[in-house]
Amino acid sequence: MSTDNTATTPTVDQIAQNADAAFRALQGIEPAVRARAIVAAADALEAHADELVPVGMAETGLAEGRLRGELKRTAVQLRVFADTVVDGSYLDVRIDAADPEFALGPRPDIRRYLQAVGPVLNFAASNFPFAFSVAGGDTAAALASGCSLVVKTHSGHPELSALTAGVIVDALEGAGLPKNVFQTISGQQRGVDLLKHPLIAAGSFTGSTKIGRMLADIAAARPKPIPFYGELGSVNPVFVTEQALSERAGEIAAGLVTSVGGSAGQLCTKPGFVFVPDAAPLEQGIADAASGSVPHRMLNERMADGFAERRDTILATDGVRAIVEGTVERDADGQGWVTPTVVVTDTATLAAQRDRLLDESFGPLTVLVQYSAGDDLGAIAEELFPGNLTATVHHGEGEASEALRRLVSVLSEVAGRVLFNGWPTGVAVTPAMQHGGPWPATTNDSNTSVGTAAITRFVRPVSYQNAPQALLPEPLQDANPWNVPQRHAPAGESTHWGDAAR
Amino acid sequence: MSTDNTATTPTVDQIAQNADAAFRALQGIEPAVRARAIVAAADALEAHADELVPVGMAETGLAEGRLRGELKRTAVQLRVFADTVVDGSYLDVRIDAADPEFALGPRPDIRRYLQAVGPVLNFAASNFPFAFSVAGGDTAAALASGCSLVVKTHSGHPELSALTAGVIVDALEGAGLPKNVFQTISGQQRGVDLLKHPLIAAGSFTGSTKIGRMLADIAAARPKPIPFYGELGSVNPVFVTEQALSERAGEIAAGLVTSVGGSAGQLCTKPGFVFVPDAAPLEQGIADAASGSVPHRMLNERMADGFAERRDTILATDGVRAIVEGTVERDADGQGWVTPTVVVTDTATLAAQRDRLLDESFGPLTVLVQYSAGDDLGAIAEELFPGNLTATVHHGEGEASEALRRLVSVLSEVAGRVLFNGWPTGVAVTPAMQHGGPWPATTNDSNTSVGTAAITRFVRPVSYQNAPQALLPEPLQDANPWNVPQRHAPAGESTHWGDAAR
Repeated sequence: MSTDNTATTPTVDQIAQNADAAFRALQGIEPAVRARAIVAAADALEAHADELVPVGMAETGLAEGRLRGELKRTAVQLRVFADTVVDGSYLDVRIDAADPEFALGPRPDIRRYLQAVGPVLNFAASNFPFAFSVAGGDTAAALASGCSLVVKTHSGHPELSALTAGVIVDALEGAGLPKNVFQTISGQQRGVDLLKHPLIAAGSFTGSTKIGRMLADIAAARPKPIPFYGELGSVNPVFVTEQALSERAGEIAAGLVTSVGGSAGQLCTKPGFVFVPDAAPLEQGIADAASGSVPHRMLNERMADGFAERRDTILATDGVRAIVEGTVERDADGQGWVTPTVVVTDTATLAAQRDRLLDESFGPLTVLVQYSAGDDLGAIAEELFPGNLTATVHHGEGEASEALRRLVSVLSEVAGRVLFNGWPTGVAVTPAMQHGGPWPATTNDSNTSVGTAAITRFVRPVSYQNAPQALLPEPLQDANPWNVPQRHAPAGESTHWGDAAR
Repeated sequence: MSTDNTATTPTVDQIAQNADAAFRALQGIEPAVRARAIVAAADALEAHADELVPVGMAETGLAEGRLRGELKRTAVQLRVFADTVVDGSYLDVRIDAADPEFALGPRPDIRRYLQAVGPVLNFAASNFPFAFSVAGGDTAAALASGCSLVVKTHSGHPELSALTAGVIVDALEGAGLPKNVFQTISGQQRGVDLLKHPLIAAGSFTGSTKIGRMLADIAAARPKPIPFYGELGSVNPVFVTEQALSERAGEIAAGLVTSVGGSAGQLCTKPGFVFVPDAAPLEQGIADAASGSVPHRMLNERMADGFAERRDTILATDGVRAIVEGTVERDADGQGWVTPTVVVTDTATLAAQRDRLLDESFGPLTVLVQYSAGDDLGAIAEELFPGNLTATVHHGEGEASEALRRLVSVLSEVAGRVLFNGWPTGVAVTPAMQHGGPWPATTNDSNTSVGTAAITRFVRPVSYQNAPQALLPEPLQDANPWNVPQRHAPAGESTHWGDAAR
């Protein structure tokens, strides 16, 4: 499969029309067929690993082990969503039987479920060329929901995108899904034009705050506004208690360096700020862990430029001292090769120099921040870190002070995932995962972009009132041919409302 | 309680700060207390009915029976939401146990639920001075979710708003909720200013497309964008099959006039266009039903002006004929008094004159549209009615043709609620209700503004990873002290993902 930048490149309108036709055709196809097609895509992805991974390595600089792991994760993710389709609980089927005795007069039979919204446009990310790209989580969620999908490929890995798209399209169409159920488009302007197209029903994005906000604004300003889910930047603050430090300094130091250095720090969940009562007990451990670091190539030159500039700014800030200075070097092709940098400062400096220090450093750098006994960590989190994908607490064995409880409560307000005694990099694809947090972590924190709950971004509720069985969609029929969970309002509930709370 | 337009009127910032303080205090209060307070508000509303209803009648022109019924509905709605709080299934608790055997490596313990977003701002509607106003559905949903709330009162019923607010505040605070958990604000500019305030976390609105869109745009353009749920206009198309007409012409004629004329047609679910194979069999029944209509006062002069203008435009359109011309008269105070108007045209005229005819007529007027055997009703619905709160089918006994199935399928894409052999006015407050549809029916059709699912507008997901029991919020604890439904990932599922779909 070639990229779409050829003489036969379809127009944006053609792509939208194709996606719409595919969406309509898809609505007539049983979910079991859709699920099998998604599994076929997972299988095909794994079958083509030896062909795809080297292309990804060349285009992104990511290591083979990382990319093979990511491809496997991407395949598992597709299968998880296939199971989500078959399970059907995401449809949130609610059936309220007619009730002639209802307090406000006879009540009709009402049945509600979530149905697919229409063609989805996803903007792929650079840093996960499998898991957040052509065959990634948004693709899995959109296909699982019953939507057709267009992926705006990322310019950082065009050949891998085209190859992956070919694999996915062959698998999906070979398994019986309609032509054009999955398409790609390339080029930022074409992506923007498609986002504005009346037939596109929802958008999703993983990338920078600047581009994500631009796209969210476009989606909101359309004549017909559409939901847009942008997963943007995050600095992922970590708070280490005194007890944790005294119990596990070595473990914390080693874990931190691994989390910061992995994938050259180009992860949206990389811990960017680590609050410690005292950096001293960590310094040797951090230095030891970092000493084994081999240079890792960054995704592209622009990313390396941005990281080098952020790192220079941070290192040149008054009151900031390097524990491990790391390296940023260029090869003959201009690509940047990096090792981890760890610096230390204190809460007063962070507050005073927030304009220089608080931005995300997209690369292997983290800032230790020493706090004093009198510092209110909750207040600091609220003021300096109002929107993050994750926030982490390292606590001691059995520790549960009022201050710690308050900190955890604040963290649950400023982040989508709160972790304990671990590191935020690594995001499990499970029903309970939340990957999304208050702005600027995401443009819309009512949802997640990882985990099976992500499917709900691409559905909308519809109720049927007094419908004859023959005219109901399958999930709402009494016969329940798809065997999905149906939640019935308890018998008699409607005449006793309010009783439970009395 | 006086309106806030006095020398002691709090500033917008004070109101926001108050709401934020109340929100924080509310997070420490058990849901059972919150639920009892909501029930206390319902009880207080009913206890003050004799005081409130006459004020509402004077301010809105709505009849006593209608307002007493609406007050009761509003009280029941509050109790339904109190039960929703106690039930706890809206929290969508998901618990994925740690899994050392997970396909992608050991998986941590992850637990997710939906927590309150923060202070909510609701813009009240004019046409339901109880059910979509100070004590209405948005208030019930926001309080049930655990949010504090500010209601921007509607200028159409200021005294009723102030009185109701006093009743609600006394009840909520008397039942132990924090001071300022519920506040009001008046004046459009102050409402807009508050919507822009950084401490406001979500907005909701019921009213016109013009104002709703303006507010949605403001919410989206904030430095920190927030979710905004606007319920706007709708023309609620109805499609009557030939078989239905032959079986039930009299019943359909009478039901239509009742639905169109009730509350002077000032309902967002009023059927505005009724497609019939032939209007003739309905004409006598419509005329008979309308002949008993007594004039009903419209909500205010501006509403009457708007309706009179729309009605004049429709009556003056070529190809439109009045079956019942109805009346629009002014009293000495300039208030408009109306009886139902029913006109008839055909599909060709509707398509040709769409600019004149397709707008919502907010008053007692409906347009019968005669279709021919060759007309594709699904295509008409798609093209002329792309976004509605409701769409209705009147079908015959046992009728389930392919054309009818296709029409129902299209209607589920262009509306939030699809009704069969009934009328869309009257919206039950139940778990399965959907009140919200594609733009321009709502600014965000991923949710509902009526029914218990409305609570999900004011919550956001948070995951806890490897949290000790003592630091988990109650709904996620193994001990489950609030006794809420907890959904556990089935044992072993995570190592077998994809199997179900094979």
